[in-house]
Amino acid sequence: MAEIEELKEKLTNLIETRNVKELRETILDFEPADIAAFMEENLSEKEQLYFFRRLPKEVASDVFIEIDSDTQEQLIKAFTDTELKEVIDDMFIDDTVDIIDEMPANVVKRILKNSTPEDRKLINELLEYPDDSAGSIMTTEYISLKSSSTVGEAFEKIRKTGINKETVYTCYVTDNKKHLIGVATVKHMLLSDKDDTIESIMNDNVITVETTEDKEDVAMKLSKYDFLALPVVDKEGCIVGIVTVDDAVDVLQEEATEDMQKMAAILPTEKEYLKQSIGDLWLKRLPWLLILMISATFTGLIINNYETTLNSLSVLLFACIPMLMDTGGNAGGQASVTVIRSLALGDLEFKDIFKVLWKEIRVSVLLALTLSIVCFGKLYLIDKLLFGYNYTTRLCFVVSLSMFVTVVISKIVGCLLPLLAKRVKLDPAVVASPFITTIVDALSLLVYCNIAVALLG
Amino acid sequence: MAEIEELKEKLTNLIETRNVKELRETILDFEPADIAAFMEENLSEKEQLYFFRRLPKEVASDVFIEIDSDTQEQLIKAFTDTELKEVIDDMFIDDTVDIIDEMPANVVKRILKNSTPEDRKLINELLEYPDDSAGSIMTTEYISLKSSSTVGEAFEKIRKTGINKETVYTCYVTDNKKHLIGVATVKHMLLSDKDDTIESIMNDNVITVETTEDKEDVAMKLSKYDFLALPVVDKEGCIVGIVTVDDAVDVLQEEATEDMQKMAAILPTEKEYLKQSIGDLWLKRLPWLLILMISATFTGLIINNYETTLNSLSVLLFACIPMLMDTGGNAGGQASVTVIRSLALGDLEFKDIFKVLWKEIRVSVLLALTLSIVCFGKLYLIDKLLFGYNYTTRLCFVVSLSMFVTVVISKIVGCLLPLLAKRVKLDPAVVASPFITTIVDALSLLVYCNIAVALLG
Repeated sequence: MAEIEELKEKLTNLIETRNVKELRETILDFEPADIAAFMEENLSEKEQLYFFRRLPKEVASDVFIEIDSDTQEQLIKAFTDTELKEVIDDMFIDDTVDIIDEMPANVVKRILKNSTPEDRKLINELLEYPDDSAGSIMTTEYISLKSSSTVGEAFEKIRKTGINKETVYTCYVTDNKKHLIGVATVKHMLLSDKDDTIESIMNDNVITVETTEDKEDVAMKLSKYDFLALPVVDKEGCIVGIVTVDDAVDVLQEEATEDMQKMAAILPTEKEYLKQSIGDLWLKRLPWLLILMISATFTGLIINNYETTLNSLSVLLFACIPMLMDTGGNAGGQASVTVIRSLALGDLEFKDIFKVLWKEIRVSVLLALTLSIVCFGKLYLIDKLLFGYNYTTRLCFVVSLSMFVTVVISKIVGCLLPLLAKRVKLDPAVVASPFITTIVDALSLLVYCNIAVALLG
Repeated sequence: MAEIEELKEKLTNLIETRNVKELRETILDFEPADIAAFMEENLSEKEQLYFFRRLPKEVASDVFIEIDSDTQEQLIKAFTDTELKEVIDDMFIDDTVDIIDEMPANVVKRILKNSTPEDRKLINELLEYPDDSAGSIMTTEYISLKSSSTVGEAFEKIRKTGINKETVYTCYVTDNKKHLIGVATVKHMLLSDKDDTIESIMNDNVITVETTEDKEDVAMKLSKYDFLALPVVDKEGCIVGIVTVDDAVDVLQEEATEDMQKMAAILPTEKEYLKQSIGDLWLKRLPWLLILMISATFTGLIINNYETTLNSLSVLLFACIPMLMDTGGNAGGQASVTVIRSLALGDLEFKDIFKVLWKEIRVSVLLALTLSIVCFGKLYLIDKLLFGYNYTTRLCFVVSLSMFVTVVISKIVGCLLPLLAKRVKLDPAVVASPFITTIVDALSLLVYCNIAVALLG
């Protein structure tokens, strides 16, 4: 935040005094992300346009891609065609596509109209890839080399074309049909002799991804191998683009956020919280709340059914229901979240289901034992002896036994559901804690009522 | 997974036939991460040692750092001093430190004994940084340049020293007291003339982090600016190391996992699920289950207190308790998880508390209204008219009104607690859904019982 504060202080004054020359010089000292944050947080709509028009050419589009999409839309609408063209020409294709994804149709039309014909063709190709695919996050601006070139020639090519490439550090070696046959890094080139051929220094065992591969898998692969970029190939093995590490980081962060949202019974959204309207939030939160509310009424039916019986056995039985239900929900949630995250990180697969089940059974028995002993002690020593409630030994035993069974069942349900969801190609995160809580609530009540009737009735 | 399958097929055969020459050649075709995964999954302890000893020198330590720590420990114990020395010498300092962090004292001693004196000094320095600090994840192997050097001289230096540096693409320009005065990227150098001075092409507005800064903030900064590395400086502005993007990605993934674990009432751990022992899992899961179980008994006390009263009003009142408690818990969980993740991503700060509160109040009223209308309809139309339960209009109203109040309270508690936790420097994720569920359970029951008594009594 320190950077933005410094920027704010310096710029606010310069904007007020309309000191354009110094404004430009000052701006060049800051990173595009900070300039964008300054614009969004401190300037009115009108000032934003004034400010953006005075940005030095070399940073304007870098700043533009960092601005949030509402502001982007306003700016584009205020731009002349020439201004829009300049901004777009300086952007990488994948960034243009990201922006287009968020814009209304008329703005998209204007963007496409003001792109060069080649860019327009590329943009349209990228727009056709499914939303979650490697194709949707790749860029087509990479450096390709011929295997017969020398290192010196490669450097010459980088010097000539590098300025417009998303990365120059990993270059892709192709044959004359664009088949990807190797990868050469600038590090390797720098450590080699000028006259070495690219063929002699390139790595010909290239890790690639296909255009249709899930973008999360692509990001995980990039992170696993610690690469700076991954080449994306089509079915014929021809390179069509690259995914760079900065985009992979964004994908991983977004996916983690989405999984957390799903675990919390929220429909996923990429929008920042403070930028979501009340209507957005309502729409994203209502469906699961409704579904879970309705399904919780079944738990109510169970209580209803057993009420008279429980009442006749002991009024104290009701007091233990929240403890049993909450502990079951928590125990199940622990197992489900662990499994969901492990699936997302690639540490688990469906085929591990028996390993997981066996592990959870052993842990749950240990946990259930500990919890039911503590539960028994708490009821007997504190509630009965200290507070004088009428808990008989048998009653304490009923509650503790129910606790034991509930915890074991919850863990089993909690670990199995996400794995089964994965198996049938559902998102494991969707069956997370709130959903499992509802199932576990009903199960634990059934267990409790039946044990109570069996042992006390 | 395709890479590992291919590797497995090729290598298993070569290991059996002890065809060392072809084994080495085949290995060089694969990435270290895949070789490590193959070793762990397919070889016995003895075979692992045999296999590792036959790895080509140039990949041995790259493979070593990818192996899990238990296997690393076994290998180190089986290594001769010379073998250990070779592996360590080829590793980057930050990787050595990561390994040391996981090893028992006697293994650490052997590692330090077999490091060069300079490395030992650096390792000891790095080990002293706090666990979550930038210092703990940085490496000291970066390229430093003098501002008076020419681009050609810089390339010469990279050629000579680059092989042992974690990244060569971002070079750090220092004065003779090691003060960081600029950053020069290889991309810039490649696009410049050989005789340009580094001073003329370097960026002298360097974004830095301090050694003591939280590693999560460092990783977020790297991702925000899309850098490949960030320089770490001490209090005097002297560069002491760099954090590279691959390590930042790991930090972000770990932090997301930790937050999910905390949200699910698990004590955080970095260990993979399948590698955790039953004892580990028990230890990580028990504390919160116990705490939450005990606190849920207070909810039980509330039921206890009101039981006779509720019973005399209507036995149907009990049936609605799970629905109210679950919906309250889910509504609160939605708000808390949203706020916790936004805090982690830097989208929210404590100073936004009133914005958040105002937003949540409006959303919660909307949600509460929808839910209580549906709840009323469900009780009146389905439970009463269809199933013939004895729900009076007044009773339905009591439940719906309680639903309304519960949802609003839950959202407010859910959004405020993480923000307040942040304020007092607690981890917001710790007060996540399970904890909030317990509070909300008690509050919703109090609301419900009081509304019932007031309107029906």
